Amino acid sequence: MIQGRDPRTGEPVGEPVPETTGVGLDALVAAAHAALPVWGAWSATPRRADALEAVADALDARAGELAVIADTETGLGGERLTGEVARATGQLRLFAAVLRDDGYADAVISPAAGAAPDIRRITRPVGPVAVFAASNFPFAFSVAGGDTASALAAGCPVVVKAHEGHPVTSELTAEIVTGALTAAGAPAGTFGLVHGVQAGLQLLRHPLIAAAGFTGSTAGGLALARICAERPVPIPFYGELGSVNPCVVLPGAAFSRPAAIAAGYVASLTMGTGQFCTNPGLLFVPEDAGLLAAISEAVGGSSGGPMLSGRIFAGYQDALEEAAAHPGLTELASGAPGPGPWGATPCVFQVTLKEFAADLELLSRERFGPAGLVITYPSVADLLPVLAALPGNLVGTVHADGSLPEDMDLARQAVAVLERVAGRIVFNGWPTGVAVVAAQHHGGPWPATTAPAYTSVGTAAICRWLVPVAYQNFPDDLLPPGLR
Amino acid sequence: MIQGRDPRTGEPVGEPVPETTGVGLDALVAAAHAALPVWGAWSATPRRADALEAVADALDARAGELAVIADTETGLGGERLTGEVARATGQLRLFAAVLRDDGYADAVISPAAGAAPDIRRITRPVGPVAVFAASNFPFAFSVAGGDTASALAAGCPVVVKAHEGHPVTSELTAEIVTGALTAAGAPAGTFGLVHGVQAGLQLLRHPLIAAAGFTGSTAGGLALARICAERPVPIPFYGELGSVNPCVVLPGAAFSRPAAIAAGYVASLTMGTGQFCTNPGLLFVPEDAGLLAAISEAVGGSSGGPMLSGRIFAGYQDALEEAAAHPGLTELASGAPGPGPWGATPCVFQVTLKEFAADLELLSRERFGPAGLVITYPSVADLLPVLAALPGNLVGTVHADGSLPEDMDLARQAVAVLERVAGRIVFNGWPTGVAVVAAQHHGGPWPATTAPAYTSVGTAAICRWLVPVAYQNFPDDLLPPGLR
Repeated sequence: MIQGRDPRTGEPVGEPVPETTGVGLDALVAAAHAALPVWGAWSATPRRADALEAVADALDARAGELAVIADTETGLGGERLTGEVARATGQLRLFAAVLRDDGYADAVISPAAGAAPDIRRITRPVGPVAVFAASNFPFAFSVAGGDTASALAAGCPVVVKAHEGHPVTSELTAEIVTGALTAAGAPAGTFGLVHGVQAGLQLLRHPLIAAAGFTGSTAGGLALARICAERPVPIPFYGELGSVNPCVVLPGAAFSRPAAIAAGYVASLTMGTGQFCTNPGLLFVPEDAGLLAAISEAVGGSSGGPMLSGRIFAGYQDALEEAAAHPGLTELASGAPGPGPWGATPCVFQVTLKEFAADLELLSRERFGPAGLVITYPSVADLLPVLAALPGNLVGTVHADGSLPEDMDLARQAVAVLERVAGRIVFNGWPTGVAVVAAQHHGGPWPATTAPAYTSVGTAAICRWLVPVAYQNFPDDLLPPGLR
Repeated sequence: MIQGRDPRTGEPVGEPVPETTGVGLDALVAAAHAALPVWGAWSATPRRADALEAVADALDARAGELAVIADTETGLGGERLTGEVARATGQLRLFAAVLRDDGYADAVISPAAGAAPDIRRITRPVGPVAVFAASNFPFAFSVAGGDTASALAAGCPVVVKAHEGHPVTSELTAEIVTGALTAAGAPAGTFGLVHGVQAGLQLLRHPLIAAAGFTGSTAGGLALARICAERPVPIPFYGELGSVNPCVVLPGAAFSRPAAIAAGYVASLTMGTGQFCTNPGLLFVPEDAGLLAAISEAVGGSSGGPMLSGRIFAGYQDALEEAAAHPGLTELASGAPGPGPWGATPCVFQVTLKEFAADLELLSRERFGPAGLVITYPSVADLLPVLAALPGNLVGTVHADGSLPEDMDLARQAVAVLERVAGRIVFNGWPTGVAVVAAQHHGGPWPATTAPAYTSVGTAAICRWLVPVAYQNFPDDLLPPGLR
């Protein structure tokens, strides 16, 4: 049984949910496979688009109830969770709009010319998709989150493996999604939910599953990626793993606005108790006492919160202990601990660039939670090769004083390096907050993701679930509708 | 040393070429890495486009010499080889045109709206690329083939691992490519060539290599794919492996044009001595004596040719022996053997749908060379589930009588199944011949390729070597030129 727990008390909350059996899983995947020809062929607009909007409406209609239940299982608070339901339903509506736009299928026509025959290409849904829900976004990256929305939009039936951290929220969400899809006329099997680690592994190994999406830890993601690669028929695995999101404060910015940078940094670091893949884990600052003091003060005034689970809290404590014991690191400041048995304490360590570079692999590992590492650099010339040696990240950030040509020249140099180690570069902002828009790229080089050409946020997320087919010398009435 | 051999005699031909040492390989990859910032940032048009066209011109200027040397190493004949140089240079010019079109970088702009910041996304070159040349296309899929052309166009320096079958052709091609790139002002290291199996493995494992392209056997491709997945930093591996390319002849077509179908089939099967990944390995025909007799007659009138290497010839002989010994298969007909020690004999076997389905995995394996398997089916209703169970393929083909509504209805059903097991569907044609156009998709589900969303032929091949970067809240002059 999967038992949710209240992060504020560590006590069980809600009814336990049974783990899905092997027989149950087989039935769900078989149903998804059977649904594919209908759901995948359903005229993308209006029918699939209508169904996605119906799911969004149904979730919105019960947003309050969903947020209340999710709060008992995640402790993330009503405001954040209500907002996150809206983010999830916004994603569903965005993908409905993508379908109505009609460009998503990427139709290309090369008419016959000379010896070359008429060739027309369009994408088709890859097949039933497995989605592994994340713990830290119980709506936007969970049962009805971006992976589910984009895969359903692509025409792929979806089987979600619920995260153990919020089983009742997952059940209720799935019930609402299934009900809305059924009412909209979608075939049975278009959407399914499984619970339990074993069910998740069986799902990934199931021969009828054609691709998988995952948001979670580096260790978990690597294990699942390997399973996908070693199947008799390997499948694409779109994993979004860990990231430390280097932020570079250039000398001019550090001099002209230390307080604003310190405040912005600490707000980004502690938001959601630091439980974001876009958390600013590494902050590179000039050897400038003013900025360090401002950061120290801001961290000291910050507060933690309850972490999502005892396991995440234990991992955070281990990461803090490892940092405290590291000979090159000193603690710069810490904030007030969060409430309850899993309450995290914001904590920022400090290290010189030289010491950081000497132990780069260890020190650039993710510390999931409100823990930061501030690296003091003597010059940007010294900094650049260290930035270039970082592992892949989701986000890189540069703070510059736009009024100083020297700072902007350094910014150009930093961006030229960061754009090779991160999928998104933020200028004079912070990495947390991922806008759901067409130009978004929430991806990045390994190990930030397992497939650096793809994004899990924004409209391009649909591309993960589509594969091309070319039609050569076809009569018009045998072509897919989008190619006639 | 790598020693080329003349397929017509099996005897050594040309000077032996030394295998690349570990030190030599390191130097080439380091040079490629050093070239990346310049070649990758070179204004895509006109400079990178000019350089690609200069390479094409230089190869065309020596097409005769190249074809003569390649003929001694491959036995493919002057006409085919001269045409193939033109195909390779056509590809280089096509990618130059893609760069001049300017849409390849896929720039997307989402302006600031409400709480969402301005986000702009564009692609960048992934990094230095390893290309593994194929044996069966000494120009179009070799040193200066489609993988090299598309990767260079994307801004990626390329290190090619030459195929052992045509070392002198590879050396001469590389000399021409390097000379033309240098004359065009490309940085040193933009292009390199290595020889030898060990050098190829070191290349794939090199930490500075960012992606790899491969055209070759299923066994070889799977081994290389695993190496890429198990690197400390895994890299994308775009492998085009084996394919048996199912062709379905519907009852109406079998009745109305048996002679034309038989002639077209045998021409496609024996073209290039059957050494194409698009070879029609499986032909599904109704239990119709007329068509079988026509096929038997056409096969009987066909001739083989010298295969590319002793190893390929030995593999072909093994495949024929395995087929001859299979209890469900009978030989339908064979043609005249090709000349020389590696001369292949065209051979077509016959099996019932029931026997085929009972041993589908073995019988649907590729038999590289002019060997066909004709599967007789009692009805299309019986055939469809067998088609659906086939492994992934590059091409599926349907022959129908367009004047018969019943045949066209069956064609619709067959296409609906084939488009899930093949990347390209041909109507009333044959799978060999892959047009280099924008709508082409030369890819397909596993094991036809290791990355079914991508093509290795046509302009979309450039997408394999590009990864996105998003820029958030950027001042105009810090943005890449394509995003301002």
